[in-house]
Amino acid sequence: MIAIRALEEKIQSEGQVFAGNVLKVSSFLNQQIDTAFLLEMGKEIARLYEGSGVNKILTVEASGIAIAVAAAFYMGVPVVFAKKGDAKNLSSDRFCAEVRSFTKGTVNVISVDRAYIKKEDKLLLIDDFLADGNALKGLLNIAAEAGAEVVGAAIAIEKGFQKGGDAIRSEGVRVESLAIIDKMTDTEILFRPQD
Amino acid sequence: MIAIRALEEKIQSEGQVFAGNVLKVSSFLNQQIDTAFLLEMGKEIARLYEGSGVNKILTVEASGIAIAVAAAFYMGVPVVFAKKGDAKNLSSDRFCAEVRSFTKGTVNVISVDRAYIKKEDKLLLIDDFLADGNALKGLLNIAAEAGAEVVGAAIAIEKGFQKGGDAIRSEGVRVESLAIIDKMTDTEILFRPQD
Repeated sequence: MIAIRALEEKIQSEGQVFAGNVLKVSSFLNQQIDTAFLLEMGKEIARLYEGSGVNKILTVEASGIAIAVAAAFYMGVPVVFAKKGDAKNLSSDRFCAEVRSFTKGTVNVISVDRAYIKKEDKLLLIDDFLADGNALKGLLNIAAEAGAEVVGAAIAIEKGFQKGGDAIRSEGVRVESLAIIDKMTDTEILFRPQD
Repeated sequence: MIAIRALEEKIQSEGQVFAGNVLKVSSFLNQQIDTAFLLEMGKEIARLYEGSGVNKILTVEASGIAIAVAAAFYMGVPVVFAKKGDAKNLSSDRFCAEVRSFTKGTVNVISVDRAYIKKEDKLLLIDDFLADGNALKGLLNIAAEAGAEVVGAAIAIEKGFQKGGDAIRSEGVRVESLAIIDKMTDTEILFRPQD
């Protein structure tokens, strides 16, 4: 609860809204990282999923990594991050999913080496943002391909007005967002009340 | 010292060598992250740079982020990560540098919003790998453009035989690598002795 309220205040004071529903929070979350604050968010995610049996965190490069690592520190589990595109040192034996990037306007393939997700795994999916839900759907597809259980998802900032989170919740996936923005204009940011 | 020896053992037991001097350590460092081990590496970096006055860590997405965050936790400083390429939510007012990727064979532009590096900053540059030194040179160029002081660099794994680290050291930059590989074949990995 402290982390949620603190995150809302931080978005209000440091967030900048740009045309096309772009919220810039790069002063503390996804370019410059406020380390102490990141730890608080990680602790809150660990609290939300306490006792849920999560044994691994799955995220996607790049800006999901920091918050995934912070949560992993408190949960005592490893992190796996999906990579975008191809590289010489990527194995060909990979779980793959297509993801449309909201901010970049491109379609990426994200993939994870099959060695790092097992069907016995109980996964927590983590990302910094949830808007249309495309990245999260990609991670859900990778988990499904691996036959692993998804215990739930944890997001720093959800753009509730873009409905991706609600669509995924309606399919029975537990989605916990530390802040949910229901309305965003140049002059005001309104948050969805949460317990 | 414990972290250095442990990292060498981990590379010996889990690292895989592929054609073209590619070392795959994605089981614990740059795809799957062994969280407890990552913390040990972060703690060792903090010890190496204790009392050096570092006030900010600069790294580059994606695989530098986890180890940068781990070091930042122990050093109590923020992390800034350079981004690759362009996106709608990137400001046009950025420090930029070109970086050739050893594993991908491409040239990327990396950049940091000018708001996040000040000329008063005393930077520690962190990355997971140092081979030809191109990523580190890119970060050095960004720091120079910002007029910030570089206290030094900390790397998880240096491929000493590719000489990038030695070239940068010869220019007077402090470069601390937790493991330096001097020779690497399909059957053996030899490390440079370190104090």
